[in-house]
Formats: sequence, structure tokens, C-alpha cells
Amino acid sequence: MPPNDRSRAILLAVSGWERAAWEAKLRALAPHRDLHLWPDRIGARPQIAYACVWKPPTGLLSALPNLKVIFSLGAGVDHLVSDPDLPRVPIVRIVDPDLTSRMTEYVVLQVLMHHRRLRLYQDQQAERVWREYPQPAAGEVGVGIMGLGVLGRDAAQVLRRLGFRVAGLSRTGSSMADVETFRPDQRAAFLARTEILVCLLPLTAETRGIICLRLLRGLKRDGALGGAYLINAGRGDLQIEADILAALQEETLAGVSLDVFATEPLPPESPLWLHPKVTITPHVAAVSDPGALVANVLQQIERFEQGLPLNNLVNRRLGY
Amino acid sequence: MPPNDRSRAILLAVSGWERAAWEAKLRALAPHRDLHLWPDRIGARPQIAYACVWKPPTGLLSALPNLKVIFSLGAGVDHLVSDPDLPRVPIVRIVDPDLTSRMTEYVVLQVLMHHRRLRLYQDQQAERVWREYPQPAAGEVGVGIMGLGVLGRDAAQVLRRLGFRVAGLSRTGSSMADVETFRPDQRAAFLARTEILVCLLPLTAETRGIICLRLLRGLKRDGALGGAYLINAGRGDLQIEADILAALQEETLAGVSLDVFATEPLPPESPLWLHPKVTITPHVAAVSDPGALVANVLQQIERFEQGLPLNNLVNRRLGY
Repeated sequence: MPPNDRSRAILLAVSGWERAAWEAKLRALAPHRDLHLWPDRIGARPQIAYACVWKPPTGLLSALPNLKVIFSLGAGVDHLVSDPDLPRVPIVRIVDPDLTSRMTEYVVLQVLMHHRRLRLYQDQQAERVWREYPQPAAGEVGVGIMGLGVLGRDAAQVLRRLGFRVAGLSRTGSSMADVETFRPDQRAAFLARTEILVCLLPLTAETRGIICLRLLRGLKRDGALGGAYLINAGRGDLQIEADILAALQEETLAGVSLDVFATEPLPPESPLWLHPKVTITPHVAAVSDPGALVANVLQQIERFEQGLPLNNLVNRRLGY
Repeated sequence: MPPNDRSRAILLAVSGWERAAWEAKLRALAPHRDLHLWPDRIGARPQIAYACVWKPPTGLLSALPNLKVIFSLGAGVDHLVSDPDLPRVPIVRIVDPDLTSRMTEYVVLQVLMHHRRLRLYQDQQAERVWREYPQPAAGEVGVGIMGLGVLGRDAAQVLRRLGFRVAGLSRTGSSMADVETFRPDQRAAFLARTEILVCLLPLTAETRGIICLRLLRGLKRDGALGGAYLINAGRGDLQIEADILAALQEETLAGVSLDVFATEPLPPESPLWLHPKVTITPHVAAVSDPGALVANVLQQIERFEQGLPLNNLVNRRLGY
């Protein structure tokens, strides 16, 4: 940084979220650091060194002459790297044990819901019907996770502990204990052994629309569960929603859990809402908790100012 | 055993279950051993050395002069020890990794369902409502398990891995890593820190009716979840069903998952069926899989005939 640059203030700019809790936490944990607030109390731009953002408006960050680091406050950085004017400063992704645990809870809940036929038993309950269905052991069921980053690996570990046959598909095909790993060129084999597909991919140019009818038709339908299931907790734009509906219609899919959608909130006219085989949650799989994340960001700022390297940097070329 | 006793045949006597799969598995894995079948092909009683049973009729076992061991094919032995004429031979409980895994799946699914407010989001979905609720971290939520046997410990381990604050209540108060354990005389303290109560107790004279209004009123209602939840996957006679309904009515309980009932199948007139805060499954939490369990039983018979000790013996005085 230039020797006369004394900027050390933080800008908080979140859209679509309530700002108050983030502001309160930043003030509580960094009382001696100036806090600028978008959009109403943005103050002198040259003082801003760090931007803590979620879906900031285009142009906001490029107007900060002394910006040093951008912190993305939620999982995923597609909201940032899609901006062609984004300043060429480091972008730090949120990797936080709290966020990871929440995503693992969501994934494990949805996998078990399909595996243990919870919706079928709920439907029976509404009819006062007492009927038992055959229940395969977890060890007979192939769960496949697309995206083996921090989130995918943690979910995979718990699913392994529960006994499922777990596989992972990732760009690098990197290995993991007790989990069969596949590279993108081995996708057909990955899908052919997968009855429950969990998508935790980042949204990039390569992954946009990856959940399409062609991919879904590759899943294993004749396995222990007698059908294939999809769980998407990554990003809505990973999925072609019309293709998911078509896959349900032709029984390529037996059930779907979606936490994310191409348009959020999901419009009332979407046929996904009332489809009997779709379970919808309003993008709550892993909600950022200001308490845990602000502490994480401030720690990284302290390290950065001591000349130490930043953790969890985004690779702009890969887009995540 | 008497020196002239050459009995080594197996009796299979299950009621309420389909017999065919058990019979097929026994024939496949023990082709050289005679198999007697209750009620239609019981054959010569003196030849029977081993009884593999689930809810056998009263009097059946006491009429077997050379019976050496009773194997209970499902979790729990209350169906046996309540018979005053039961022969004084060893009773072996089923402890099988397959059964344990299935129970852990059920418990983890139901805990996560309440923790992550799945039913609330399902109700919203039916109304096409997109609304997010505050979600406490697992580490803020106290899960309490009554019964820390093999099943309770396994579920506790996975719940710990998911981050929950887990406690256990057991007769001996035996300790467990990362789990706070309580003895029966510390029950009030156990309940006061528990927001999600999981019951995996055996049914004995002491535990019958333990889930009553008084116990439920001891649960923590003002914790991170803002309400208390009950999950019973032990035995139906552990619970007073009228008290559970009263606890829901007075908001002592915010939600209930029941897999077992005082009368099974649950009668159509039970108000539990259509209660909006009750999730009912037809006694499927941990269904005995003949494949895994028959192999386990035969292994124990082989060991017994070699003079080795039996595993997982029932303590008749304690009733489990």
C-alpha cells in the first residue's frame, strides 16, 4: 500500500439482508475502527480500506480508491465476480465453522428425509394409514455430492458416519477418506452410482445450468431406494427449473429438495410450490450468522495489517 | 446341559411380522440345522434348543424341555420378560450394527426436522409463502437422550458431530465423551437443560408411563428453539398419550415425533393422527433386517456350542 495511505475504515454494504445485526456486531467487536454504511452513511470514500459486502450495487466498490480487501459475507462469490468493474484487490470468501455446520444440518436432514420416506409417512398420517415400507440400509444407498469444498466435505463426513455410500464430484477429483471421488470427465460414472444427488457447487460460467434433464437422466433410478432424488443447496442458477419439473413428470426423479431458485423469492406462479414431490425452503440452508462471521472478518483484517497472508482467497479465474 | 441332550434345532416364532424372510435366511445360513416353525410346523419339541422369537405366545417357550437360549429378534425384550412362565434360560438381546444405524438415522432425522423447522416450512410451502425464520446454531440447542445403551450412545455421537449440546440420562449415569450424563436422581436438572427430548429407554416396570405431563413440564421451553420437543422411538407404553396431547395443548410441547404407541397399529380414532404438531411413523424407526440379524444369531449359537459366553445377555432383574 502507498506509504501515506492511512485508510483503515470498514464499509458495510449488504442488500437483501437486514443490516442492523451486522452493524451492531461490527461496532461491538471493532469499536476503534470507523464504520461506513451503504447506502445512507457512506462518508469519505478514501478512508475505506475493507468492504464487507453481500450483493453490493455495481460501481460501489470501484469508486473506493484505497480499497484493500473485499470480504463476501455469505457463501458463494458469484454476486461479486460477475461485476466486470470489480477492483483488482483480494476477495475473501467466508469459510466459517458455523456456516459449514448449518449446511451439513440441511444436507443431512434432506438426505434422511428422502432415505427414510418421511413425506410418504406424512401423507399416510394425513389419511390415518398405518403401513410400513421396506427400508434399505444406508449402506445400500449411494449419495453423490457435486462440489467437494469445505461444505461438501463436511456433509460427506457426516453422511459416511451415518453409513451411506458417499461419492464426490469435483473439478480436481481430489481424494477423501472413505469417499469415492470423481473428476468432471468421470461424471457419467458418478451419476450412475448416485441415488441421492446433493449439489453444493459454486455458481460459475461452467456450472450455470448444470442441473439439467440430461444430467438428471444419468442418475441411478433402480437402486435400493427405487428412485432418484435431487437436493440443491448451492445456487438457483445451477438448476434449470423446467428440467427438474420434466424429470419429476417422467419419473427420472422421485423427489426434490430445493433451497435455492433462479428467482428468489420463488414467484407465486412457479409450479414448484405445490408439486407433491418437491420440498421448498426459502434459501435458509446456511444463513450467515453475523456473530460468528464478523469475528472471522475482523481477525483476518488484523492478520492482514500485520502483513500475514489472507485465508480463503477467491481465485478470480475459476470464479470461486 | 444333560450329557444325552443332543438337541440343536432352532424354533422360529414371530408374531406381528412376516415370517418368510426370517425362515429363508435361517435356511440359507444354517442349512444343516433343523428349523421348527411356529405355529404350523412346530414338530418335536424336545429337539428345540434355540428359540428365535418376537412376541411369542405365552406358554410356547415353557413347553420346550431342552431349550437352551432365547434370542429376541427385535430391539427390546419387554415382550418376553413380562411372561411369568418364561423358562430360566439365557435371553440374548439383539445388538446389531444395522439396527443401531437405523435408529440413529431416525433420531437424527427427527431432531433435525424440529431443529430446522421443517414442518413450518412445509406449511408455508403449501401456502406459497417465502419467509425465513431465525435459526439457532446446533450448539445453542440442548438435546437430551433418555437411555444411554448402544442405541442412545450411537445417536448421541452423531448429534455431537452435528454440533448439538447433548446430554444423557441413564440408570447408572455412565459417562460418555462430550456428553453430559445424569442419573435418575438428577432428572430435574437433565430436563431443565433439554429442549429436544429423545426417549430410547427399554420398557420395564420402572419406565412404564415415564413420559407423563409432569416429566414434560420439566423440559426447557425458553431455549434457543423457543419450545420443547419430544421424540419417542422406544416403546409405546413409555408414554401416556393423553398427557402428550395435554402438553401440546398447554404449549409445554411445541412438537412431537412418535414411532411407537400404547396400541399398535395406532387406532384410527386417536387424536394423535391429525394433530398438526405430531409426526407419526408406523413403528419403523429401527426395523429388524433378517439378513443382518440371522447371521448374528447363528454366530452366537456357534459360540455357545463351543462353550464360549453369550453376548448381550438380558438382566432379568432389571428387565432389559
